[in-house]
Amino acid sequence: MSAQPLVISMGDPAGIGPELVARVYREHPQVVAGAVVVGDEACLRRAIDVAGGGLHLRRLDRLEPLPGAPGEMLFVQAGEPLQPPSWGRVSAAAGQAAAAAIAWGAREVLTGRAAALVTAPIHKEALAAAGLPYPGHTEMLQALAAEHLGLPVDDVPVRMMLASPELRTVLVSIHVSLRRALEAVTHENVLSTVRITAAHFARLGRPGVRIAVAGLNPHAGEGGLFGREEIEHIAPAVAEARAEGLQVSGPHAPDTVFMRARQGEFDVVVAMYHDQGLIPVKYLGLEQGVNVTLGLPLVRTSPDHGTAFDIAGTGRADPASLLAAIEEARRLTGPAPGRP
Amino acid sequence: MSAQPLVISMGDPAGIGPELVARVYREHPQVVAGAVVVGDEACLRRAIDVAGGGLHLRRLDRLEPLPGAPGEMLFVQAGEPLQPPSWGRVSAAAGQAAAAAIAWGAREVLTGRAAALVTAPIHKEALAAAGLPYPGHTEMLQALAAEHLGLPVDDVPVRMMLASPELRTVLVSIHVSLRRALEAVTHENVLSTVRITAAHFARLGRPGVRIAVAGLNPHAGEGGLFGREEIEHIAPAVAEARAEGLQVSGPHAPDTVFMRARQGEFDVVVAMYHDQGLIPVKYLGLEQGVNVTLGLPLVRTSPDHGTAFDIAGTGRADPASLLAAIEEARRLTGPAPGRP
Repeated sequence: MSAQPLVISMGDPAGIGPELVARVYREHPQVVAGAVVVGDEACLRRAIDVAGGGLHLRRLDRLEPLPGAPGEMLFVQAGEPLQPPSWGRVSAAAGQAAAAAIAWGAREVLTGRAAALVTAPIHKEALAAAGLPYPGHTEMLQALAAEHLGLPVDDVPVRMMLASPELRTVLVSIHVSLRRALEAVTHENVLSTVRITAAHFARLGRPGVRIAVAGLNPHAGEGGLFGREEIEHIAPAVAEARAEGLQVSGPHAPDTVFMRARQGEFDVVVAMYHDQGLIPVKYLGLEQGVNVTLGLPLVRTSPDHGTAFDIAGTGRADPASLLAAIEEARRLTGPAPGRP
Repeated sequence: MSAQPLVISMGDPAGIGPELVARVYREHPQVVAGAVVVGDEACLRRAIDVAGGGLHLRRLDRLEPLPGAPGEMLFVQAGEPLQPPSWGRVSAAAGQAAAAAIAWGAREVLTGRAAALVTAPIHKEALAAAGLPYPGHTEMLQALAAEHLGLPVDDVPVRMMLASPELRTVLVSIHVSLRRALEAVTHENVLSTVRITAAHFARLGRPGVRIAVAGLNPHAGEGGLFGREEIEHIAPAVAEARAEGLQVSGPHAPDTVFMRARQGEFDVVVAMYHDQGLIPVKYLGLEQGVNVTLGLPLVRTSPDHGTAFDIAGTGRADPASLLAAIEEARRLTGPAPGRP
């Protein structure tokens, strides 16, 4: 386990983020031992009530590696104290508070004082209402990281990794049509995804991670019979990555590579498009899916769901995915038995 | 359970088919109680030896609904008695014997004397060496069914269903590049796949099967943002099928529809391309995959592997997939608790 604490940003205070954080503290105190929540005191207090109470909020003025105690939530106030917003409503104040928490948490990780950032869900419209030009966490963190590094944003490419306890997959492209995703399967994009994946694990002290690259077509093209992308783009990218010393193999038949990774043959699979990677990750249950942002000089994980404004404040939201995100952040920043 | 017996064709006698059949008889006698193997006596006897012996071959001259006894394999000789061929070698004689068994079994099912046909694997080259113009089981069965119905082969469209104990998926297209698979996602092909799927289950006495149709693009296109195939082809096909009285829904987001089916919300998922359906079916293990041919007026299942000439005769082949194929044939032809 890293000596630096884990930081958890509360998310949009009108959504389910704060109450999920409180639920994890109540139900899984060992998982958040020593972690620090960043957010707003009044909003966190209200969320603790929704979660059933019984937690003591202990305010820190700066990040400190403290063990914490069961029944205690260490927290840092980000930005000005807030009047808790109405549940399930978009507001500039809520967006501002959510963004302040992210910015504070990202800075602590970028400067090495925190081990990793786990982000509870935010709302895009609230962020926009607060005047922030980011469609989501990824773009905001990319901008903060680029600023920290003194680089243009485009020089800090990011990729999404989806992880379940059994499978990790990194996607070459995300939210584009399958037709456009086909165009994105280029030598350059595949190679860049492999490099980002390898660099992510190397930075965590695991340089020998076994990366499998999926093919695009059935049976990985069957020697060109069912498509030529494997021959023209994917195989050359894999060869180049191997020449760089990376433990990469493929292109593998898509219909079995995820099963093989699940059985332990590979540590992570580079998927050629959104559903190729997300179908197997989500197959065993949504509560298992954790989002990990790769390419940035910080470890960031998040649950694979949104603010669920429709049920915020009711206590009915399921904390399983946030719990999984926290556990994954711990695995990614500390020695885990048997997993890279 | 259907009153008619199940027929199991032995497959290519130079491959692992006959020994897998013998293994199932030895290890799971209850699953094959009353079933009849069709093949060649000497080849079956040799396979029983490979499987460890201890089975009594009882020859029938025609299909009879007999209970069978543990330790007994009821069989019918198809074609002329054969000198067992060398293990792992392509031969015309083996191809001829395999084809004779399939033809006999298909006829018994088409005429209603048998409930279903389970086919052990055959070898395409052996079939060709025997002068038979079929690349595989599917095309041969399609031809036999068309002949039985007095129709041209093209009027008997077939689709592949892949089934695991947890998930069934029917594919709009199979062995084409992903680029060509996109072109195959037409109103006509999607509707035809839904109809074939519904007809398959209706013929088995389950007209209310809940069919989910997957989208093609991430999030099923997100209202046209990530592709328009859902709007232009898939949704209209689903609407037309519903207007015909079928219990069809979709297009659903591909990354969660298989998980939802696994959790019991749908009975079968129509997948838009090969890997969309095969990734989730195979994710929990290859031994689970069973092939079911739809569109034909007979129930036919098979294991999802080939003749494995490299290990034929060694007794090392795993009978799990053949066992699963037999169990699936029983489920498809008899009342199964809680599954359609």
